[in-house]
Amino acid sequence: MEASAAVETWLDAFNTALTAGDTQAAAELFEEDGLWRDFVSFTWNLKTLEGRNEITDMLDAVLDRVQPANWQLTELPTEADGVFEAWISFETAASRGWGHLRLRDGKAWTLLTTMQELKGYEEQKGANRPKGVEHTVERGRKSWLEQKQEHQSRLGYEDQPYCVIVGGGQGGIGLAARLRRLNVPTIVIERNESAGDSWRKRYKSLALHDPVWYDHLPYLNFPDDWPVFAPKDKIGDWLEHYTAIMELDYWSGTECLGAEYDDDAGTWELRVRRRGEDVTLRPQQLVFALGVSGYPNVPEFEGANAFLGEQYHSSKYPGGGDQTGKKALIIGSNNSAHDIAADLWEHGADVTMLQRSSTHIVRSDSLMEFALGDLYSERALAAGTTTEKADMLFASLPYRILPDAQIPIYETIAEHDAGFYDQLRAAGFNLDFGEDGSGLFLKYLRRGSGYYIDVGASQLIIDGRVKLKQGQVAKLTGNAAVLDDGTELEADIIVYATGYGSMNNWLADLISPEVADQVGKCWGYGSGTTKDPGPWEGELRNMWKPTSVQNLWIHGGNLHQSRHYSLFLALQLKARMEGLPTPVYGLQEVHHRR
Amino acid sequence: MEASAAVETWLDAFNTALTAGDTQAAAELFEEDGLWRDFVSFTWNLKTLEGRNEITDMLDAVLDRVQPANWQLTELPTEADGVFEAWISFETAASRGWGHLRLRDGKAWTLLTTMQELKGYEEQKGANRPKGVEHTVERGRKSWLEQKQEHQSRLGYEDQPYCVIVGGGQGGIGLAARLRRLNVPTIVIERNESAGDSWRKRYKSLALHDPVWYDHLPYLNFPDDWPVFAPKDKIGDWLEHYTAIMELDYWSGTECLGAEYDDDAGTWELRVRRRGEDVTLRPQQLVFALGVSGYPNVPEFEGANAFLGEQYHSSKYPGGGDQTGKKALIIGSNNSAHDIAADLWEHGADVTMLQRSSTHIVRSDSLMEFALGDLYSERALAAGTTTEKADMLFASLPYRILPDAQIPIYETIAEHDAGFYDQLRAAGFNLDFGEDGSGLFLKYLRRGSGYYIDVGASQLIIDGRVKLKQGQVAKLTGNAAVLDDGTELEADIIVYATGYGSMNNWLADLISPEVADQVGKCWGYGSGTTKDPGPWEGELRNMWKPTSVQNLWIHGGNLHQSRHYSLFLALQLKARMEGLPTPVYGLQEVHHRR
Repeated sequence: MEASAAVETWLDAFNTALTAGDTQAAAELFEEDGLWRDFVSFTWNLKTLEGRNEITDMLDAVLDRVQPANWQLTELPTEADGVFEAWISFETAASRGWGHLRLRDGKAWTLLTTMQELKGYEEQKGANRPKGVEHTVERGRKSWLEQKQEHQSRLGYEDQPYCVIVGGGQGGIGLAARLRRLNVPTIVIERNESAGDSWRKRYKSLALHDPVWYDHLPYLNFPDDWPVFAPKDKIGDWLEHYTAIMELDYWSGTECLGAEYDDDAGTWELRVRRRGEDVTLRPQQLVFALGVSGYPNVPEFEGANAFLGEQYHSSKYPGGGDQTGKKALIIGSNNSAHDIAADLWEHGADVTMLQRSSTHIVRSDSLMEFALGDLYSERALAAGTTTEKADMLFASLPYRILPDAQIPIYETIAEHDAGFYDQLRAAGFNLDFGEDGSGLFLKYLRRGSGYYIDVGASQLIIDGRVKLKQGQVAKLTGNAAVLDDGTELEADIIVYATGYGSMNNWLADLISPEVADQVGKCWGYGSGTTKDPGPWEGELRNMWKPTSVQNLWIHGGNLHQSRHYSLFLALQLKARMEGLPTPVYGLQEVHHRR
Repeated sequence: MEASAAVETWLDAFNTALTAGDTQAAAELFEEDGLWRDFVSFTWNLKTLEGRNEITDMLDAVLDRVQPANWQLTELPTEADGVFEAWISFETAASRGWGHLRLRDGKAWTLLTTMQELKGYEEQKGANRPKGVEHTVERGRKSWLEQKQEHQSRLGYEDQPYCVIVGGGQGGIGLAARLRRLNVPTIVIERNESAGDSWRKRYKSLALHDPVWYDHLPYLNFPDDWPVFAPKDKIGDWLEHYTAIMELDYWSGTECLGAEYDDDAGTWELRVRRRGEDVTLRPQQLVFALGVSGYPNVPEFEGANAFLGEQYHSSKYPGGGDQTGKKALIIGSNNSAHDIAADLWEHGADVTMLQRSSTHIVRSDSLMEFALGDLYSERALAAGTTTEKADMLFASLPYRILPDAQIPIYETIAEHDAGFYDQLRAAGFNLDFGEDGSGLFLKYLRRGSGYYIDVGASQLIIDGRVKLKQGQVAKLTGNAAVLDDGTELEADIIVYATGYGSMNNWLADLISPEVADQVGKCWGYGSGTTKDPGPWEGELRNMWKPTSVQNLWIHGGNLHQSRHYSLFLALQLKARMEGLPTPVYGLQEVHHRR
């Protein structure tokens, strides 16, 4: 009851201040360093306001237009350690929102506001679902199948899509499903033959390292017998069925050749090759959804051309086969390096992993138990934390304070698995937990690399079944890699598990280097840690929000992020299609080119 | 509180009587004519016990073995009109159950007990879902895809399935999904090229006449934007995706040539032709899931061979095309007759419907509002009535009293739509509401025919755009049908919307007439109404429960029934596979051959 009263008092005061246009008073309801994270509702941006001054500035700029109102508790708040947590709903002039609030001593520590739907453009679902068939009989009406076939034959030719998504992996597919629900005509361009191939084509033993509750796509959850860690081909099949069930306009076997913006027409001119046929698409919005990374990074070693064995980047490594009697060298020590080392070892190879820099390792079971279990698990579900709520809870801690919440988790894991880590160190493995001890998810957000979720390969390292070396490659010879300390590692197979470049390399190639530089680096939030230089930006660069190039968007991330952030990107696109005012507050500056 | 106390008192007394083996006392807790409907839990049968004597008899026969226990309220009971309604759970020695109880003045009016899972053979779902990948690395382990491919290549050849389902429409598919979850190796045999074709091949304008909430398959609900009345091709596609997602062993393009039971081997010998290859399957259990009906009934009219136009049974009518200038005659006045009349009219034909006997018509909107809305609708969902609960509530009223609950609904509809019915009568349409006024669902249960859910064609009749005649066909000529009153109806197209025979005709053809007769008529429950002769049987004949031929089962019904009853049939099959004792109480007698 105390929590309810406190939250209601706060919401009333907040509403009063906002309604009165008293932005100072509204900001005073936050702690001095209070954080307000807004997804689209107020800012038409993904933005965290840090401290009262930034909050006041934002409100001064947007309040007249946004007209927030109707702040409501949607369920009873909870209390833990002096923090009241509350789920709230609210409205703006243009939209309905869902939010989350943390109060300490009557002041807001964190506020998350997210746009959920645009008024007048709600998804037709539940009680508002389409009837599907008109209960009158009319001459000349067309069946669902006829309408669908006609639509498919016209779209991209007689009819132009409003939006094109380049890249039809889980990111593009999930976003397209959202856009389809919002009646935004969209084509997804995918180079592979079938939806799901981007998973199917990876190495044989690949399974998701994230658990099922974390991996749902929008609108259609996996059945409740879906395995915790789905094998790649099963995920591939699911994506293919999902694409068809959601009736996406999905052009597989289609390559994007290039794009440029036609200022006169106000559209992109996108040249694609669809199963051998050249087609020019003219969408108003262009979304790149080519994964969380750019092109594969393949180091240019001296002598690489002279090497007589097989060489693969990890993204191309097929896996499987009989590798008995072959010596394999994996360059790198992150997720793919471990997975592929295990795959090669399983198939009989004599495997060496070359670790070039320290790596964060967490055992999958421990990650589930300590890091994800409260949000994404059967335990969480039983406590009422649906996937949607878990996504919101995750988002409710802005990046400024997320490390504080993560560090204790990894301290617990370090203690819980102390024996495991000791064994790894004894095997010569160079371990870390992130520069500030904040562990896996922050490494992922900052640099998208530097970790392995252990699903068994660490034991191979500990046992010495997979050999481990530290060092850098100086050069390759016909049958070996020579390290900088002169060690020669014989190899029949070399796998470069050396990561990927920044996403905007795609833009350089497909549009122009100038546009890529104008957009700037993607991912990372300016944490000032390795591979994520400052200045502080507070939200991921260019992801799911306006970039410095109008009508050009970047979508990506893991299944969780693709699912959650696709909602906000879809709403931004829908609003533009409908000609609603979408003034962007606090467009990010570009501090890093690529 | 009163309801809770009353129900708990009753459950305690019931438990005490059952634990003490005092079957008389247990029966005394029911009203004199109280009804106990049991699905598998107590009887290994689908059985309604009517009145205290039948209840005592049943308990005397089974109580020692069943050992019921742990009767619990699962949520707060409700009260309406002096009836307490309660959701309950219970256990038996072999299983866990879910039930529903209605109390009046402290006595049970109705009790429904249903088996939900076999102890020790629970579905691996939720917290017990498979992990999907072992977090150890082992040489020689196979990927999910390799295991699946190996399984598929062996099943039906090196490895025999425990069960074969003949018929891969929604019935066979849903049952196979249940069996897959229970690890019962099963092959579904389907003549069509692809799952879903049984829908796709029907006339172009076909859409479900039942609403989406009524139509879910097990385990994977339609997305929440699925139309209320799904078009046939969309359902077809869904079934195809569902079959793949559920990883069913689905042999499409496979015809069943014949089957006989091999007493020595204790298996069926089932001859099938799979894409041109003859294969003999040897399952222990054989399920026919060929729909709710047998072969098409095509009347043998004098002169049918001389007729020069097109003739179709409704099941083969393709729909669409340009029918301008053609005269079409529809023989029959039920669902298909109306749908096809509308389809022909839409495509330009001059259509006459020949009504041969009275027909029950309900407008779709009224059916939704008054008959289904409390169980299957957004309104029901908002009130907590999930599809699973709705299925149970529907089942909680045994057929003995179901008409009492239905009659007032159709009285309301008759009043609400009085103008509509007047117009139909004025157009010469011969209407009924069932012999006892109990309406559509009971007609469906008793005879599977005799009604039309109006989705627009009635207006064509009212307007005279589709002409209506009453009578019987005496004979056909080269270009006309001649009625028994001598009227000559010119026709270029004749559609026989004349229904189907009983399901056991399939058995006569595919096994033997003797076996078909031993099984007897399927469907209907002995209501003593037209096409459902007595004696009273109380449950649908041969459906989803043991037949008089061991290891031979019939599955079918609409989407609701296929979904709900497939659970009970699957559990019966699983128990037999595991060698659990499954003594059938009250095996039905065979009163009607075909």
